[in-house]
Amino acid sequence: MAQSQNVKDLAAARSLATFNVPDMTNYIHGSKENVEQRRYIFSLIEKEPIFQKKDWAWLNHTDAVKRGIGMSTRLAEIKMENDLNDYDYSIMLEAVDDTLPILLHTGAFIPVITSQGTDEQHEKWLPSAQKFQILGCYAQTELGHGSNLSRLETTATFVRETGEWELNSTSFTASKWWIGGLGALCTHAVVQALLIIDGKDYGAHVFVVPLRSLENHQTFPGVEIGDIGPKAYGGFSKMDNGYARFNKYRIPLDHMLMRFSKVSRDGVYTKPPHAKLSYGSMVLLRSVMIRQAGNYLSRAATISTRYLTVRRQFNNPTVRRDTTNPQLETQVINYPMVQNRLFPLIAQSYALFAAGQQMMAMYFRMMQDMSQGNVDALAEVHAMSSALKSYCTTLSGVGVEECRKMMGGHGYSYFTGLSHLFSMVIPSNTFEGDNYVLTQQLARYIIKEVKTARTNPDRVTPFSRYLIRATGKNANAFGRETCSVAQDQDWLSWEVQLAAFEHRAARLAIELADNVEGTADGNWSDHNIECYRISHAHAQYILVLWFGQAIRDATAASADEKVEGPTGQVLWKLSHLHALHTIQTHLADFVEDGYLSPGQCQSLRRQVKALVASLADNAVALVDAFDHPDFVLNSALGAQDGDAYKRLWDAAQSEPLNQRKVCDGYEEYIRPLLKRHGEVKL
Amino acid sequence: MAQSQNVKDLAAARSLATFNVPDMTNYIHGSKENVEQRRYIFSLIEKEPIFQKKDWAWLNHTDAVKRGIGMSTRLAEIKMENDLNDYDYSIMLEAVDDTLPILLHTGAFIPVITSQGTDEQHEKWLPSAQKFQILGCYAQTELGHGSNLSRLETTATFVRETGEWELNSTSFTASKWWIGGLGALCTHAVVQALLIIDGKDYGAHVFVVPLRSLENHQTFPGVEIGDIGPKAYGGFSKMDNGYARFNKYRIPLDHMLMRFSKVSRDGVYTKPPHAKLSYGSMVLLRSVMIRQAGNYLSRAATISTRYLTVRRQFNNPTVRRDTTNPQLETQVINYPMVQNRLFPLIAQSYALFAAGQQMMAMYFRMMQDMSQGNVDALAEVHAMSSALKSYCTTLSGVGVEECRKMMGGHGYSYFTGLSHLFSMVIPSNTFEGDNYVLTQQLARYIIKEVKTARTNPDRVTPFSRYLIRATGKNANAFGRETCSVAQDQDWLSWEVQLAAFEHRAARLAIELADNVEGTADGNWSDHNIECYRISHAHAQYILVLWFGQAIRDATAASADEKVEGPTGQVLWKLSHLHALHTIQTHLADFVEDGYLSPGQCQSLRRQVKALVASLADNAVALVDAFDHPDFVLNSALGAQDGDAYKRLWDAAQSEPLNQRKVCDGYEEYIRPLLKRHGEVKL
Repeated sequence: MAQSQNVKDLAAARSLATFNVPDMTNYIHGSKENVEQRRYIFSLIEKEPIFQKKDWAWLNHTDAVKRGIGMSTRLAEIKMENDLNDYDYSIMLEAVDDTLPILLHTGAFIPVITSQGTDEQHEKWLPSAQKFQILGCYAQTELGHGSNLSRLETTATFVRETGEWELNSTSFTASKWWIGGLGALCTHAVVQALLIIDGKDYGAHVFVVPLRSLENHQTFPGVEIGDIGPKAYGGFSKMDNGYARFNKYRIPLDHMLMRFSKVSRDGVYTKPPHAKLSYGSMVLLRSVMIRQAGNYLSRAATISTRYLTVRRQFNNPTVRRDTTNPQLETQVINYPMVQNRLFPLIAQSYALFAAGQQMMAMYFRMMQDMSQGNVDALAEVHAMSSALKSYCTTLSGVGVEECRKMMGGHGYSYFTGLSHLFSMVIPSNTFEGDNYVLTQQLARYIIKEVKTARTNPDRVTPFSRYLIRATGKNANAFGRETCSVAQDQDWLSWEVQLAAFEHRAARLAIELADNVEGTADGNWSDHNIECYRISHAHAQYILVLWFGQAIRDATAASADEKVEGPTGQVLWKLSHLHALHTIQTHLADFVEDGYLSPGQCQSLRRQVKALVASLADNAVALVDAFDHPDFVLNSALGAQDGDAYKRLWDAAQSEPLNQRKVCDGYEEYIRPLLKRHGEVKL
Repeated sequence: MAQSQNVKDLAAARSLATFNVPDMTNYIHGSKENVEQRRYIFSLIEKEPIFQKKDWAWLNHTDAVKRGIGMSTRLAEIKMENDLNDYDYSIMLEAVDDTLPILLHTGAFIPVITSQGTDEQHEKWLPSAQKFQILGCYAQTELGHGSNLSRLETTATFVRETGEWELNSTSFTASKWWIGGLGALCTHAVVQALLIIDGKDYGAHVFVVPLRSLENHQTFPGVEIGDIGPKAYGGFSKMDNGYARFNKYRIPLDHMLMRFSKVSRDGVYTKPPHAKLSYGSMVLLRSVMIRQAGNYLSRAATISTRYLTVRRQFNNPTVRRDTTNPQLETQVINYPMVQNRLFPLIAQSYALFAAGQQMMAMYFRMMQDMSQGNVDALAEVHAMSSALKSYCTTLSGVGVEECRKMMGGHGYSYFTGLSHLFSMVIPSNTFEGDNYVLTQQLARYIIKEVKTARTNPDRVTPFSRYLIRATGKNANAFGRETCSVAQDQDWLSWEVQLAAFEHRAARLAIELADNVEGTADGNWSDHNIECYRISHAHAQYILVLWFGQAIRDATAASADEKVEGPTGQVLWKLSHLHALHTIQTHLADFVEDGYLSPGQCQSLRRQVKALVASLADNAVALVDAFDHPDFVLNSALGAQDGDAYKRLWDAAQSEPLNQRKVCDGYEEYIRPLLKRHGEVKL
C-alpha cells in the first residue's frame, strides 16, 4: 500500500519545526539521561505480553481485575529482576497506563509503615513487603466518611485482658469503601480506625491488619471483603477497589503504628510530639498528581494535534498552508478556531510540566529541611501543593475532554485513546482532597499572610510577597493600579503578565481577608466561593512564575544543558500564550476593578490570536517533543506515523462482532420481527 | 431494618417545599395529560424483562449489541401492539435510556423517504418500513468526511445500458462510517452518494439501498459491512455503529429518492426547485436535542441533589439546617459552595425545558407555514436552532459531569447513573453539527440582520430586534449604555436582565459585522472565535427570554392550567438565578465595554449568592418535580427514597467478583509472587 496522504501530511507538518525536538524533549524531562532512562524503562514494559492493550476496550470490570492482578505481579517481578528504584517504578507505571491492584502497596502501604512505624515495626513488615511476600493496601475511606477522619466509624478498641486491639465496623456506614487493592489482591492493610481505650476516643490512628491467609488467600474470620463494582467511564477497571467490614477482629498491640502516638501494654496512651508531621506524604501525593496532570494533558494534546493535522475537511483557500495540491481539502488544524482551542492546551501542558518539576523539587527541599528539624516551609508548601493540585488537575481534566471534542465525530470512538485517558485523569478532581474543598487550604494560608503583610511585611513567605504591594503604605496606590500595556506587543512581557496576576491575586486575597474579618466568626463556609477564586488565582500566578523561571534557567548561559536559541524562543511564546490565554479565560477578574481597560481587553484578545497563529508551524514538533511513544498513547488517531484512517480501520477489525457472518440475535429477535406481518417483496 | 438516616433526611428535605410539586410537574411537561401519558408509557417499558438495566455495567460492546437488538425488536413490537404515535415512541425511548440499533429506522430512514421520496416511492417502502418488515438506517458520514457533503467519496454512477445505479466506494476513506443500525441490524439504508452521469458530478443525493437478504440476513455481494467497535466512555454500547463499502453494487433507477431532484431512464437530470427544502429535518433533530439537553441535565441534577441531601460530612453548626439531632454531621447540600454549584444547574434545567418546548413549537409553526408555501421563517428558525443546539448541549454536557463531581468520592462509582448519562449526552456536542462549527450559522444570520437593522429596521426578524437599539440613530446612545442596577435588589427584574443580554449580544454582533466588513473577503475563518461568542450570547438571551415568557404565560390569569402563586414565585426565582448566574459566568462580556461597573459586579455576585440561598428549602422538591422515575435514573445514589448507602451496597453485591471465595488469578499470579522468596512468618 502506498504511503497514505495522512502519513505525508504529518511528515510535512513535522518538517516545519523551527527548533530542535530532542533539545526540547531534554528540557521537558529534565535531562538527556532522564529521557534515555524513561525510554529504557518503557521498553521493559512494552515487550511483555501481559501489558499489551489491544483487548482493553472489551474487558468488563470482572475480567479486567484478573488482568490487573496479572499485571500487578509481573510489575513486581520486573522491579525485583531489574532492581529498579522508586523513580524507575513510577515510569513503569506511566508505561503501563492503568491503575492496578498493587499500586497502593508501594504508594501507601510501605510509605505509611515507613513514616509512622517504629524501628521494630519496620523490621517486622518492611523486608517482606519489599519482597512482595505480603501485599498491602491503605484503608481509610468508609461508606459514610471520606474527608472527615474524626468521624470514622471503624474502631480499634484496646482489650485490657489480652493487650490486643479489637477491630469493629460499628455501623453499616462504617464499611471501608473504595480501598484499592483490597477487593482481590492484598493480604494486609493499614487501616485508619478510631482508637478507643476504656471507652475514651483518641481519634483516628493507623493499624497494620492481616486480611487474608498467606497460605490460601482466604479472608480471616471476622473480616468480610468484597469488590465495590465498576467505576464511571470504565475507569479504574483493573483496580479491585474494595470494601471491608470487621466483626470483633483481634490484632496484636504492636500492630498499631507507634512512631508518633504510642499505647503501652497497660493501656496508657502517649500523644505525638508534632501534629503535622504526617503532612509530608500528602504533599508528595499532590505533587505527583500535578506532574501527572501535565503528563495526561500532553498526551491528549499529542493525539489531537496529530489527528487534526491529517484530518482534512472543506477546501478553504484562505487558511490552507500547503499549496502543492490545491485539490486536497484544508487540514483541520489550519482553521483558526481549532488553533485557538488546541494551542493553548499545548502551552498549558508545558506550563504543567514546569509546575510539576518545581513542586517536586520544593517537596524534596522541604523534606530535607524537616529531617534537620526545620518545619518553617511546611505551611507554605502544604498550601501551595493544595492550590496547585486543585487547579492543575481541573485544567487537565477539562483539557483532555476538550482535545477529544476537537476531534469531531471520530473523537467519540474508543480508539482515540482519549476515553481511557479521561477516565484516568478525572478522578484526580475529586480524590486526595476534592478540588473545591481543597482550595480552602490556600485561602486560610493567604489570609494569614495578609495579616503578616500588614503587620510584619518582612516575614511574608516568598510566594505571597505580591501581597506587600497591596497593604500598608502601598494600599492606596494599589487601588489605583492599572495595567501598563499600551499596544498589543506590550503583552509579550513576562513581567507585565506577572504584574497582572499579582494584582488580581492580591486584590482577591485582601477582599477575602477583609470579608472574613468583617463578619461574625464561624461563617467560613459563606466565603468558600471566594476561597476557590483566590486559590485558583494564586495557582495561576505560580504557574506563570514557574514556567518563566524554568525557561529562564534553561536558557541561562550557565545552564548545564542549555536550551539553544530557537528552542528558547518557542518556549517563551508558549509561556506568553499560557499566561495571556489564562488572563483571557478569567478576564472578569482583571477587568472588574478597572485594572484592565476595555481597550486592553481587545488588545489582549488580538495578541492571543496572534500568538496562536505564530505557533502553527511548530505544533506537531511541540507535541512530538513530549516523547510519548505509541505504546503509551494507544491511539489509532494519534500515532507517531499519522496513519489515522488506516489504524482506525484496523482497530475496528478487532471487534469480535466482525468475526460473524450474521449477528447474534438474528434468529432470536430480528427474523421474527421481519416476518411478523408476512413476507414482503421489494 | 429500621428506616435509615438517609431516608429520613430526604423525606425531611422534601417536606420543606413551599410549592405544590404536581403543579410544577404539569408546568414542566406542558399539562397534566402529558404527565399521565408519560407515566403510562414508562410503565410499558419498565415491566419488560429485556429493558432491565441491572447488568448494563458489565456488558462489553460485543454483548451489548445483542442486547440492543433484542431491545430494538421488542420496542417495535410494543409500538405496534399499542399502536403508539411518534410522540409516545419518543417517550418510550426516554424510558429505555440507551441508543439502539433501531433508532435511525424511525429517526431518519422513514423520515428521509417520506420527505424526499415520490408518492410511488412512499408506496414502495413506507408500508413495509412502518410494519418493520424492512429495517433501515441512514448512511451519510464516511471515514474521511463528515460535514462536507460535496466531497463524499461514495459514488452512484448512472449505468446507461441498464438504467441502474452502480454504487462504489471509490477510495479507502470512502467507507461509510459511524452509521447507527448498520453494523448488525438493518436490511436497508438510505445512502448519501455523489450522483454521476456520464462522468459529470451532480453532488450528493439520496438512494435507498438493500444491504442484507430478507431471508437469511447475509449481506449482498458487492456490500461489505462491519461494526466500528466500542465508543468513548462506554457510550452507545448497544448501538451497532457500522461501516460499509460498496463494490460495483447495482441498484435500480427508482432507488434514487426523486421528490426534488430527478433522473430519467435516459439519464437526464432535473434540479430541485428549492435548495433549502430539506432544512426542516435538521431543525427538527436539533430541536429534539435541545429538549433532550434539558432532560439529561435535569436527571443529573435530580441524582446529585438527592444524594447531597443525604450525604453528611463534618459538623458545621453555622450551615446546618436541622436542629433536631446536633450529633449528626452537616448535610453536604447545606454548604454554600455546594449550593452555588448545584442550584444554578437546577435553574438551567428549567430554562432548557422551556427552551426545548418553545423551539419545538417554533418548528411546528414553521412547518405549517412552509406547507402553505411560506418559507419566511426558515432562515431565522434554522439559525436559532443551530445556536441553541450548540449552547444547550454544551451546557448539558458540562452540567452532567459537574453534578457527578459534586458527589465527591462516590461520584466516581458507575452506580451513580451519571457515567451512563454523560456517555449519552456528550456526543451531542459533536454530532448533528459540531458545537463550534455550528455557531457560524447564527453568526452569518446575525450579520445579515445587522445590515437590515441599519438599512431597513422594520424588516429585522423578531428575535434580533435588539440590534435596532444599537444601530442607526441609536448607535451613539448605545455606546454609552450602562446597566441601571443601583442596589442588589434591582437585579431581580426580568427586564433588567434582558436589557443586559440584549446589550451584550448587540455589541458582539455589531463588532463582528464591522470586522467582517472591514477586512478582505474570504477570511471568514479568522472570525470564527467571534462567531462562537455571538452565537452563544444570542442563545443565552433567547433562553432568558423564553424561560420568562413561559412563566409569564403559565401564571397568566387566562392560562388553561394556571400555575398557582407559590409555584410561580419559585419559578421566577429560578429564572432570575439562571439569568444572573449566566451573566456572572460570562462577566467579562458585560464589563469590558463598561456596561457594568465594578460595583455592579460585586452586587451581582451578592445577588446570585442570595438567590441560591433562598432556594435551599425547595431544592429537593424542584428536582422531584422533573418526575424522573427510579427506573429511568438507574442510580443507587439518586433514587426517590434517598436510601443511598444501602442501594450502593446492594449494587456492589451484584459484582460477579463477589461470588467467588478467592479471586481468579490467585493460583496463577498471586501465590507464585508471595512464595517467590520463600515462606514468611508474621
